[in-house]
Amino acid sequence: MRKVAVVGVGMSKFGELWDLNLRDLVVQAGINAIKDANIDGTEIKALYGGTMASGRLIGQEHIAALIVDAMGLNPIPATRVEGACASGGLALRNAYFAIASGAYDCVVVGGVEKMTDATTAEAVTALGGAGDQEWELLQGATFPGLYALMARRHMLEYGTTEEMLAAAAVKNHANAMHNKYAQFHNPITIEDVLHSKKVADPLKVLDCSPITDGAAAVILMDLEKAKEHTDNYVEIAASAQASDTVALHDRESLTEIRAAQIAAREAYRQAGITPKDIDVAEVHDCFTIAEIMAIEDVGFFPKGQGGRATLDGETKIGGTIPVNTSGGLKACGHPVGATGVKQVVELTWQLRGEAEGRQVADAQYGLAHNVGGSGATCVVHILKKP
Amino acid sequence: MRKVAVVGVGMSKFGELWDLNLRDLVVQAGINAIKDANIDGTEIKALYGGTMASGRLIGQEHIAALIVDAMGLNPIPATRVEGACASGGLALRNAYFAIASGAYDCVVVGGVEKMTDATTAEAVTALGGAGDQEWELLQGATFPGLYALMARRHMLEYGTTEEMLAAAAVKNHANAMHNKYAQFHNPITIEDVLHSKKVADPLKVLDCSPITDGAAAVILMDLEKAKEHTDNYVEIAASAQASDTVALHDRESLTEIRAAQIAAREAYRQAGITPKDIDVAEVHDCFTIAEIMAIEDVGFFPKGQGGRATLDGETKIGGTIPVNTSGGLKACGHPVGATGVKQVVELTWQLRGEAEGRQVADAQYGLAHNVGGSGATCVVHILKKP
Repeated sequence: MRKVAVVGVGMSKFGELWDLNLRDLVVQAGINAIKDANIDGTEIKALYGGTMASGRLIGQEHIAALIVDAMGLNPIPATRVEGACASGGLALRNAYFAIASGAYDCVVVGGVEKMTDATTAEAVTALGGAGDQEWELLQGATFPGLYALMARRHMLEYGTTEEMLAAAAVKNHANAMHNKYAQFHNPITIEDVLHSKKVADPLKVLDCSPITDGAAAVILMDLEKAKEHTDNYVEIAASAQASDTVALHDRESLTEIRAAQIAAREAYRQAGITPKDIDVAEVHDCFTIAEIMAIEDVGFFPKGQGGRATLDGETKIGGTIPVNTSGGLKACGHPVGATGVKQVVELTWQLRGEAEGRQVADAQYGLAHNVGGSGATCVVHILKKP
Repeated sequence: MRKVAVVGVGMSKFGELWDLNLRDLVVQAGINAIKDANIDGTEIKALYGGTMASGRLIGQEHIAALIVDAMGLNPIPATRVEGACASGGLALRNAYFAIASGAYDCVVVGGVEKMTDATTAEAVTALGGAGDQEWELLQGATFPGLYALMARRHMLEYGTTEEMLAAAAVKNHANAMHNKYAQFHNPITIEDVLHSKKVADPLKVLDCSPITDGAAAVILMDLEKAKEHTDNYVEIAASAQASDTVALHDRESLTEIRAAQIAAREAYRQAGITPKDIDVAEVHDCFTIAEIMAIEDVGFFPKGQGGRATLDGETKIGGTIPVNTSGGLKACGHPVGATGVKQVVELTWQLRGEAEGRQVADAQYGLAHNVGGSGATCVVHILKKP
């Protein structure tokens, strides 16, 4: 396999962006990435787009063709990849394969979701399509409900507390204060989280990631070509993915996401490193309990210790392993298809030393953990500073 | 790039299958393909799924995870690829990249669409998502309407007649008589087509492909591994893709699909052959005019001569270039995400000499032409008998 590098990254603002449509968001992120890469658009030979539910949210399928058209990049091949909330990570992974195979030297990946054109009820129903429609959603199990089951079980088995969950949200809001693209710029306290409105016990509003509009873009290049082009590249040291049952009731355990464990193990093998070597991570905190499980599943902390570690500040910037410096899904926002791409944008900034106000010192390795649904899909990427 | 072979193919029945859900269809096709490949399921290391609009048709996104789960193939990576009606071809192409890159030796591709759970109005609206939702669908332009514009212009520029269009449907129904998986087993005449109900002038019901449930599966293997495994493989000699504007009004011409022309040219280059070398083709006849444009765009006939050639029987089995021996989208049926995969299933049978009752003599090269929307995406594969 040829090796692959990130040579440019860009984002749109994340938030409730009433005056921007999907095309506007994608073009903002794409142009930022092309400028950052310092390339001409004609050097890009293929496009991958990650989006989860554009069909239901804005009535539009065939999203990659729409993006390539909006970006003025016709007639290059354009392909949409979908894996629920892991759509962005999967799009990146398939762009990586296209370059690794030798088919193309330079490919752009765009992740996008335009969510606020739908009503909240429509959005919640569309997001439910990430779970098992016949066995979960039709029975009334929304995603907060599914993750609440996991949280309750984690509390029972490991003594995880609501304060520990809240600490993840508090940290992520603090990190987002330094990210100009983030949806929220308001610091919150554990008390704020504990007293916010219950959504699905024990999860409260401030345990949940928001409904967000946004886009992110990454430009990938064959590693050898990247070295000729710039000194400011970041290498993709690993790309790994695994699956699990779609329905939660088919799993052996509710307190771990097996697909994440398998994908992480494979990613460390590819990169030739261990969890201790990771300096900064973006993990899939669609709910606070998801961040707690994630930092256990990828091996930063033993199973059951993620809550305590979070409350103790080990995942803060300056802690043993800074997690979600972007603000995470919780505070940077969660435009579903964009999230997996945004994680890699943030890690690239961190590894290049450009994460103003939230920089992790001397970051060499970054890990992105992107989950679809309640864990039926997980994709893990490891980025490495050359 | 490593070379890639097809080592097994399978289909479900295509049709209005009220008693089968999406999982049932996929499992039927998948098991048929695994049996045909004579492998153990554990040899499959990744899954790609093509589906266009499962979110709107059955409320289910995250389809690849659902398929890999239904097939009992967890925890291998599962990825959905979408490019409207070209979703199946794009899924195949990305599975091809995954093997060509060296990441995997054996990958299964499944294409599926469960369309009859939705009302006809819901299905038509969902399919409209393949076009430009803001600039076409919202203004009332459904897909029959868009292709009717192309037909009318083709008639004006080249003297193509309604009889010529009808001849494509008549041929495809005749071919489907010999395909046990096909939706329709009724021969039709040109008179039948001409007197069928108008949908969007000049297109009538019998110019249009139907709403269909169905699935198709293909198992791909690294070519060297395939040679060790079986004598009954077929090589993928080319995989090419291109894009065009999503909205028809942005195109320079209504009588050609530029993405198809570009993809076909690139495919011939990869395979080192010319259109004359193709012995059998499956092209994207979502409407009869689409078949006429397709056989021109891929170079079988000069622009404007496709209608005359079809009326003269040149694309019949036994003609100069047999087209849509499966019955095509028109008569085999068009479960959108399955179509691009089914095309490769049919070509594999043809190249292996197993297309009972509809076999093309001594077929060496087969071409699959799969279009998304009104031509914003086109993917062309060339298969080669070893």
